[in-house]
Amino acid sequence: MGTNRLESFSDGVMAVAITLLVLGIDVPGPSPDHTLGHELLRQWPAYAAYVVSFMTIGIIWINHHAMISRLASADHPILILNLVLLMSIGVLPFATELMATYLRHADGQELAAALYSGAFLVMSLAFSTLNRHVLLRKSHLLSGSLPLARRQAILSRALVGLIPYAVATALAFVSAYATLAICAAVAVYYALPVASGSPSAT
Amino acid sequence: MGTNRLESFSDGVMAVAITLLVLGIDVPGPSPDHTLGHELLRQWPAYAAYVVSFMTIGIIWINHHAMISRLASADHPILILNLVLLMSIGVLPFATELMATYLRHADGQELAAALYSGAFLVMSLAFSTLNRHVLLRKSHLLSGSLPLARRQAILSRALVGLIPYAVATALAFVSAYATLAICAAVAVYYALPVASGSPSAT
Amino acid sequence: MGTNRLESFSDGVMAVAITLLVLGIDVPGPSPDHTLGHELLRQWPAYAAYVVSFMTIGIIWINHHAMISRLASADHPILILNLVLLMSIGVLPFATELMATYLRHADGQELAAALYSGAFLVMSLAFSTLNRHVLLRKSHLLSGSLPLARRQAILSRALVGLIPYAVATALAFVSAYATLAICAAVAVYYALPVASGSPSAT
Amino acid sequence: MGTNRLESFSDGVMAVAITLLVLGIDVPGPSPDHTLGHELLRQWPAYAAYVVSFMTIGIIWINHHAMISRLASADHPILILNLVLLMSIGVLPFATELMATYLRHADGQELAAALYSGAFLVMSLAFSTLNRHVLLRKSHLLSGSLPLARRQAILSRALVGLIPYAVATALAFVSAYATLAICAAVAVYYALPVASGSPSAT
Repeated sequence: MGTNRLESFSDGVMAVAITLLVLGIDVPGPSPDHTLGHELLRQWPAYAAYVVSFMTIGIIWINHHAMISRLASADHPILILNLVLLMSIGVLPFATELMATYLRHADGQELAAALYSGAFLVMSLAFSTLNRHVLLRKSHLLSGSLPLARRQAILSRALVGLIPYAVATALAFVSAYATLAICAAVAVYYALPVASGSPSAT
Repeated sequence: MGTNRLESFSDGVMAVAITLLVLGIDVPGPSPDHTLGHELLRQWPAYAAYVVSFMTIGIIWINHHAMISRLASADHPILILNLVLLMSIGVLPFATELMATYLRHADGQELAAALYSGAFLVMSLAFSTLNRHVLLRKSHLLSGSLPLARRQAILSRALVGLIPYAVATALAFVSAYATLAICAAVAVYYALPVASGSPSAT
Repeated sequence: MGTNRLESFSDGVMAVAITLLVLGIDVPGPSPDHTLGHELLRQWPAYAAYVVSFMTIGIIWINHHAMISRLASADHPILILNLVLLMSIGVLPFATELMATYLRHADGQELAAALYSGAFLVMSLAFSTLNRHVLLRKSHLLSGSLPLARRQAILSRALVGLIPYAVATALAFVSAYATLAICAAVAVYYALPVASGSPSAT
Repeated sequence: MGTNRLESFSDGVMAVAITLLVLGIDVPGPSPDHTLGHELLRQWPAYAAYVVSFMTIGIIWINHHAMISRLASADHPILILNLVLLMSIGVLPFATELMATYLRHADGQELAAALYSGAFLVMSLAFSTLNRHVLLRKSHLLSGSLPLARRQAILSRALVGLIPYAVATALAFVSAYATLAICAAVAVYYALPVASGSPSAT
């Protein structure tokens, strides 16, 4: 299978998932007790989670493009591993709404935050697994030859990228706000020009 | 009509349907009686149904790609049969949420499970009908020549693929859990490398 | 502007609209008074409206493809008229849910049915307007030369296609069921092989 | 990175966002006190906001196409700025529903209107920022050479386009209806053939 349709289907799933995030931001119903401004400010976790998730999915899309563009064609295991990656992305609107709903609840904020960064961790693991499979086991499907040292460098860097999400997940039981801050910092880091070598080369 | 836009529209519908599945997983509202962990665990059928449906749609997408890639162009009956197939896929978010909602209700679990695997059965039938139409009646539209024996082998294998869903639908009235397990097993089977010849050749 | 991206955006909007239709089919909540089977049967208008709308959007997609494939490039008025057409398609999930909700309510069924077929009428008008603009005023943008008589024949046939929706809208105030039946009949007619010349040539 | 997949992902996000707008139009529940016609008329702000937002997203899509078509390839900062633009578009279904819900509420209409046109202002700013970055700082990535005077003219015109949204946002605290009217007028202006030079050249 050529990679065109693999890209178009993956782009579709990521584009829908990233756009569905907005459904997690509710329009508050008119309330006799509070002004609209008050109600809108109260749900700031929904905006924060929206921005962090949007940028994170966007960055995984950039990385996905870089990964697939190295492939000349895709076989069945690649398609299945890609499907698992898409499934981990598809679940992010749920994880994002969970985080937004519980960030300010004493009961549940720890678990919600752990599941939020845990979902990013699973997504990153699925990405790394697919990338490792492509670079180490399916190198004959690559469109150009890539030295082994270069391929291993790409994979090491991707593994290092898992660490912040693992830390954020563990920290959720100390502070849900810290978890959100780490996830935000990861998105900002990969968005910065200084890191541009990293994602576009991952 | 060339097959490019047929593929792009079909990819779009399948990408949206597979991503809408996440709307069937509710964020539980804060509850005074139960912890968030308890509430999240309680709705495990939603996660199970999500995974099974996601992988099943993903596999039908792989098979769809293989089917369309054999075609050089598409005529009106092919477009209409493809539309019927897409309609049977488009209804899966509903069938999945139905299954997730009723799997643990004594009243309704049998019917919900029967409709769930029944929806997969209808989807497989629509796929087989289109494939049969393409391979047997529209062989002049194929991009390469395929011996009749090979085409019949593809169709027989596809028909065999209907059996598990028929069994799962019948078994729903014995155990809804058995139905879900069979649907899950089918998805795992087609995802395994050992079966890779099957879907990519279907 | 080449027509590639016009097609890809239009395909995207139609693919999302056709797949969002499923959100109009509710999973009934567990009820102490009625079985799930009873509840599911009760909402048969939702299934009927889903099927009719799905096939209708699918057929307009086929026709849209035929229309755009005649164009070598698109200018600003074509893009805007296409946007109006997409807007009339984008509103169909609302019109479909309205029809499904009110078909069996004595109060409102007439208006809901009139709005349902009225939405199809508006969509057909938007399609005809764009097609007329392309064929009569922008014939220099066509990818091949098409005799004027042929172009006029295409447009006349499209105008004839408006009649059933106009009739269905008027009949809504006699019987909402008749309206639904006519809309269904139109979809079946264009799906039949016998009519295949019509949509793929429109 | 070539611009093909950038276009396809951006088209996907814009197509989903524009189609999700319809979820902001509710099907009114059957009411004993009012006819369906009355209930449907009452929610006219939802229809107005739908049309204005649909046309506005559609026009930004046209402009986006013109901007990207000038590029031969995209680097990391372009991808990130494009992601920020898509995020500002992705939030429009929320802003639209907010406007529709509060336009006729004495409490909240001012803020809702300010946020509605404010969202368009942010989107236009994100678009201008990306366009400025492309035309002034990444001119080596352009597919053809464009004189500096021409590039500056494009950017000046885009900046002028921000003014109506800034005015509409400020006016929200005088009249929410005026804000909606200005946003509608902007959409109509860019849709008119007379302005066709502007968007397709922006």
